[in-house]
Amino acid sequence: MADTDLRHLEERRTGSTELLKGHFLHAFRDTVELPDGSSTTREYIVHPGAVMVVALLDNGHVVLERQYRYPMGRVMTEFPAGKLDAGEPSLVCAQRELLEETGYRAREWALAGTLHPVISYSTEHIDIWFARGLVAGERRLDAGEFLDVFTASPEDVLHWCCDGTITDAKTLSGALWLQNVLARHWPLEWQTQAL
Amino acid sequence: MADTDLRHLEERRTGSTELLKGHFLHAFRDTVELPDGSSTTREYIVHPGAVMVVALLDNGHVVLERQYRYPMGRVMTEFPAGKLDAGEPSLVCAQRELLEETGYRAREWALAGTLHPVISYSTEHIDIWFARGLVAGERRLDAGEFLDVFTASPEDVLHWCCDGTITDAKTLSGALWLQNVLARHWPLEWQTQAL
Repeated sequence: MADTDLRHLEERRTGSTELLKGHFLHAFRDTVELPDGSSTTREYIVHPGAVMVVALLDNGHVVLERQYRYPMGRVMTEFPAGKLDAGEPSLVCAQRELLEETGYRAREWALAGTLHPVISYSTEHIDIWFARGLVAGERRLDAGEFLDVFTASPEDVLHWCCDGTITDAKTLSGALWLQNVLARHWPLEWQTQAL
Repeated sequence: MADTDLRHLEERRTGSTELLKGHFLHAFRDTVELPDGSSTTREYIVHPGAVMVVALLDNGHVVLERQYRYPMGRVMTEFPAGKLDAGEPSLVCAQRELLEETGYRAREWALAGTLHPVISYSTEHIDIWFARGLVAGERRLDAGEFLDVFTASPEDVLHWCCDGTITDAKTLSGALWLQNVLARHWPLEWQTQAL
């Protein structure tokens, strides 16, 4: 995209108040100066960031999960994902979450990109990792974590994105990457990791 | 996907407390019984729902926006979108947001699907609308709303999804739909609307 002067859109923080420090949700209300000099407030969640893993099996299938998502009131189909621990590098988190939730380790990893699930009210980012050279093992779910692991062809994943079986935005975004990586339209830079 | 018994994953609400009623954020903490009978808490945002519009111009380009997103601290490139007013039908919202933010009206509309931006801590859903037969006019931004409207080819949109220019998950999900609709892989059911 051509360089664009964006200063006429920018907002400037003039104050900040913590609204909520829950077990999980951490919310703030900032006062903000708008581009025309008027002021407003912005309320948002501060989030530690997360990773998602699109894990490619040697047979061409990918690893998926079914997990009950309480705010949705139903079980959702997703790529494996999880939150960063404090100070944890993104790849270490991706390796940890894939192992804990699915039992898989991977010989090769590639960072595809980053997505922002909810740019209007959360700081959350999700790094999109691809993994291949998978070795199956035992998963190590956290206490209180319940999820099913299964595998499916990329064709099935894309069909489920089309027919409404998959509606999770990070998984839809991962499917966009999967489709274009498999078509060799979008490049990945693979790095080898010790198992 | 084959019918699957999902009861071993389900969580059951046993209580609910309002944590925060802000100007925008509305947060709850529920107590929940897990599948193994143990209990935990779930904190989440209640959201009215939203729409996004992938608007196809007669020259093959799509309509995009640049908007400063405060939690991101920067200007983001997005498909037009906006929140449902109370009781507002999804299509009426899509028509209203497209007109207010971009000035375009559309003769034909198709509901592609729904996405859920953040299934772990918000009830938000976003209906994905496609629009064609566009007629340009004057936009009607809300007070305090600042955004730039521009158009780009689908090829450019997909390139920006690949190179990290576009990271907004709803827009990435819209790009997945755009790519597969244009390739005639995914069908849309168009309906004609009065301008």
